[in-house]
Amino acid sequence: MDQGNSGLRVESFVAALGRALATGDAAAAAGLFGAECYWRDLAALTWNIHTAEGRDAIVAMLSATLATARPSGFALESSGATADGGEEGWFTFETATGRGRGHVKLVEGVGFSLLTALQELKGFEEKQGASRPEGVEWGAQRGRVTWQERRAREIAELGHSVQPYVLIVGGGQGGIALAARLRRLEVPAIVIDKLPRPGDAWRSRYKSLCLHDAVWYDHLPYLPFPAHWPVYTPKDQIGDWLEMYAKIMELNFWGSTECVGSHYDDAAGEWTVQVMREGKPHTLHPKHLVLATGMSGVPNMPEIPGMENFKGNIYHSSNHPGGPGWEGKRAVVVGANNSAHDIAVDLWEHNAASVTMIQRSSSMVARAESLRANGDRGPYSEPAAQRGLSTDQADLMVAAVPYAVQPRVQKPVADKLQETDRDYYDRLRRAGFLLDFGDDGSGLGQKYIRRGSGYYIDVGGAELVADGRIGLRSGVQVASFGESTVTLSNGEVLPADLVVFATGYGSMNGWAARLISQDVADRVGKCWGVGSNTTYDPGPWEGELRNMWKPTRQDGLWFHGGNLAQARHYSRYLALQLKARLEGVPTPVYALPPVRHLG
Amino acid sequence: MDQGNSGLRVESFVAALGRALATGDAAAAAGLFGAECYWRDLAALTWNIHTAEGRDAIVAMLSATLATARPSGFALESSGATADGGEEGWFTFETATGRGRGHVKLVEGVGFSLLTALQELKGFEEKQGASRPEGVEWGAQRGRVTWQERRAREIAELGHSVQPYVLIVGGGQGGIALAARLRRLEVPAIVIDKLPRPGDAWRSRYKSLCLHDAVWYDHLPYLPFPAHWPVYTPKDQIGDWLEMYAKIMELNFWGSTECVGSHYDDAAGEWTVQVMREGKPHTLHPKHLVLATGMSGVPNMPEIPGMENFKGNIYHSSNHPGGPGWEGKRAVVVGANNSAHDIAVDLWEHNAASVTMIQRSSSMVARAESLRANGDRGPYSEPAAQRGLSTDQADLMVAAVPYAVQPRVQKPVADKLQETDRDYYDRLRRAGFLLDFGDDGSGLGQKYIRRGSGYYIDVGGAELVADGRIGLRSGVQVASFGESTVTLSNGEVLPADLVVFATGYGSMNGWAARLISQDVADRVGKCWGVGSNTTYDPGPWEGELRNMWKPTRQDGLWFHGGNLAQARHYSRYLALQLKARLEGVPTPVYALPPVRHLG
Repeated sequence: MDQGNSGLRVESFVAALGRALATGDAAAAAGLFGAECYWRDLAALTWNIHTAEGRDAIVAMLSATLATARPSGFALESSGATADGGEEGWFTFETATGRGRGHVKLVEGVGFSLLTALQELKGFEEKQGASRPEGVEWGAQRGRVTWQERRAREIAELGHSVQPYVLIVGGGQGGIALAARLRRLEVPAIVIDKLPRPGDAWRSRYKSLCLHDAVWYDHLPYLPFPAHWPVYTPKDQIGDWLEMYAKIMELNFWGSTECVGSHYDDAAGEWTVQVMREGKPHTLHPKHLVLATGMSGVPNMPEIPGMENFKGNIYHSSNHPGGPGWEGKRAVVVGANNSAHDIAVDLWEHNAASVTMIQRSSSMVARAESLRANGDRGPYSEPAAQRGLSTDQADLMVAAVPYAVQPRVQKPVADKLQETDRDYYDRLRRAGFLLDFGDDGSGLGQKYIRRGSGYYIDVGGAELVADGRIGLRSGVQVASFGESTVTLSNGEVLPADLVVFATGYGSMNGWAARLISQDVADRVGKCWGVGSNTTYDPGPWEGELRNMWKPTRQDGLWFHGGNLAQARHYSRYLALQLKARLEGVPTPVYALPPVRHLG
Repeated sequence: MDQGNSGLRVESFVAALGRALATGDAAAAAGLFGAECYWRDLAALTWNIHTAEGRDAIVAMLSATLATARPSGFALESSGATADGGEEGWFTFETATGRGRGHVKLVEGVGFSLLTALQELKGFEEKQGASRPEGVEWGAQRGRVTWQERRAREIAELGHSVQPYVLIVGGGQGGIALAARLRRLEVPAIVIDKLPRPGDAWRSRYKSLCLHDAVWYDHLPYLPFPAHWPVYTPKDQIGDWLEMYAKIMELNFWGSTECVGSHYDDAAGEWTVQVMREGKPHTLHPKHLVLATGMSGVPNMPEIPGMENFKGNIYHSSNHPGGPGWEGKRAVVVGANNSAHDIAVDLWEHNAASVTMIQRSSSMVARAESLRANGDRGPYSEPAAQRGLSTDQADLMVAAVPYAVQPRVQKPVADKLQETDRDYYDRLRRAGFLLDFGDDGSGLGQKYIRRGSGYYIDVGGAELVADGRIGLRSGVQVASFGESTVTLSNGEVLPADLVVFATGYGSMNGWAARLISQDVADRVGKCWGVGSNTTYDPGPWEGELRNMWKPTRQDGLWFHGGNLAQARHYSRYLALQLKARLEGVPTPVYALPPVRHLG
């Protein structure tokens, strides 16, 4: 991002953009872009997470938002050449109500992509650095209230005599990161989780589980992992980190608390939420309800004839305890993605008599080491950290690439992976494994964005499949159960004492159905996916993840989720949207999309 | 520290120094220095913390150490002009066994001060950044041991079937920072504290207590406070931080554990330490014993005639609980330094009928705001943090100023303080307060180094003294007690229900007397102080703090303490000295000083 020889043109672009926007000239602004162009806005102009694609869409977006957003003060921070021969620049700007950062990429001298990302609200800046609190209370004061007393009072009152403005359901990394953002923005919030302690969602998983993403990608906001933190954090260690984080960030975390029902009162503009807290019923009245139950929805558990007569154990992958207990048992694992592989390995490691994986459809496998080697060239890596690249900046760099552009950026990487690891993939194919690299060959990242599934990041399991220590049946389904067998769709009968369904999860709006009502679930529709018209991600094209971190068609209902990086980055925009509403900052939402799929 | 126009001369100096040391020419090396000169070594050449003062001392030090230390590879990192017209540079170097960083200051073109600080041991580098552990265990492995299982096994074994190499007595910030360093260096260590949880030493103090140093000065190693952390951390908040830190850094912290006796077996080269852990006796056999009981020793509690007949309460300031309970009571606080003021304010805030401070001798008072304004120009400040100055670098910058030079650097600051806050000081004097700014006017920092006492950082208490809400009697002592009175040395009788002795602490070797034996305490002698021949710091000049973080005259016995910044910085050198001994790296100690004062 050093000032390169391309500085001048990016500078001219940003200056011209500033002039056009200052005079409210949407057409002039759009005219700075080429035929293929994107303007991605993160809550700065649209109070939405929205990508305008093409000049007409940019004109439409600006025409609707310029009068209230009034973007101004565009100032170039840095510029340089891009690897693909374009030019790029980073800039700051402000709106009527906030301050933002942005990115522009020029191709052949005209605008290709623009990012505008809200960073803070004017008058409601987070207190940090030079504006951090004093801590000590100066002078002698009778009736002094200490930090501890203030905190104890808040804990005693919030959710009782004082209602939270926001209730976050789900205390995993998503709920915790959002709660931390809200805390720093002084938005009263409670996060509830059915498990007792922060981090228990990780602790309760199978014992060999480690984060699948490397540490540089996984930092929480405000408090990065120290330099000795492992590359792939073991589950109990991330559990401890989350517990510590919730404490140090002074989050109002209610453990052992389950949401049992809720409804929205349109007239009052607030929710009534019934929870069971440590076995006792309690009612909360937040203005906003955030479902932070992961990017996954309710577990998919198929109904298969004969299940009811099966004498062994059947459960969903999310309930696999891991560890000993299955010695000498014959296990069948349905599925061939991350959880299926991890669980199959776990069962093999604990001396199951046999482990057979049922691969229903093709899947992508990628060696973690190969992904890591790619990652080492990217913004989330030790080399990047050593260069001084901040995690916040890395997040914006990633956010600056529109969803529509990502497949063409990522396909060459996926192609190269196939080439580099050709022998590895050949061995898997020879074992009968059905491989794919996405409907369009764009690889793992796009599978994650489109469907949140369909891949295995290989930390060793594929080896066992390749050499037959884990059995494999592919292109088949479980057709029926006997008392101690499963029958596959090709007629093969497998003896079984345990059947694990690693069959994924429904859309997050399944949680809305469960915790609120089917009506509300249908009103907001499917979550996640971008409308790529590929497997499990029906079109039409949306250009953004459906319903995530932005207003939905149900007032006061929000969805938060994703991996640690998304939880970190997008919690910023969700928190700012909530803070603006708390403070009465006008938040006219542009381009709330129609609901096209129910779940 | 940018490359300035003075770069060349510093570069020449460093190059010439490297050449002289490479050929073992101590005289040539010393010849690079001026008549007044200092070489401060932090465990790099001397395996000691030692300052050689003057060319002869430098020759002596180098003659004794060069053959084994073999310093080489001097490489300038940066150089520039100093504010006082000199030149300075930072450099790296290595020795036979380690790698270090150093600083040189030239005055009029010749060496004035040199710092050589060991940073890591060759072959025993901390695993961090690119060398951090993987976390995940690659591949499928039967008998896999997870992070949690490994940690649980360590907790079960260490101190039982496996002996710690180091036992740290005292689990405040000092013990915790050292334990963290040792952990990262893979030195098996246990830290014990009589209170149950890490941080309890802070939590148990009076309620209004906050750190007296600003946040930029207070970071622990590895895991800095986040940007929203208050400037002066309230005691319960620092307590929570320490508790979290001990957990996340995986320290072996034994709470509710008191050391009840210990002795050193010269033949075996190890300690036998009796502890009571949660009420049960237990014996440990560490090779090294670190007393990390703060920079303060055992509380000073005077014996005064009539004490035994006093009907009210008498206690040392370290036992003041703070908070309510003294409403309507007449309180006398003996002392006029930090604790005395804080406790007097606390009693006043909680509606004691009267609070009278007995100032026995003069004290320094400085407004925290004024100190902060000075600090904002220094290396531990928000401006410095914004410039990207790391805490490690700030620590080395401070360490680069020899103790002998500090008073002349600090006196102008103290002089300016008196000028800026003249009205404030006049008001205090009018109230009868006996003020001093150190025997030589060098101010608070030197009082801390020389005696660890003699000042009050004013966060509001002096105001109450100045306007009489807190009574003051100065230049007097408590001569005797009646049943409900104290009689002062001038004959005045004060009615009293509570007498608090904020009369400080003895030298840290008082802990050696209590936990080991008077013999050992006398063998190591007084801790702290530099031999400045000022009040409470008798000469002769030592040039370094006595016995702190370095070998003592008792094998296997070490003292660790000081404020958060010292605990952070000097724990590095203490940890490296211990690691070297664990690994059998030769550690010939140069210039172990004679013991001149017993405590």
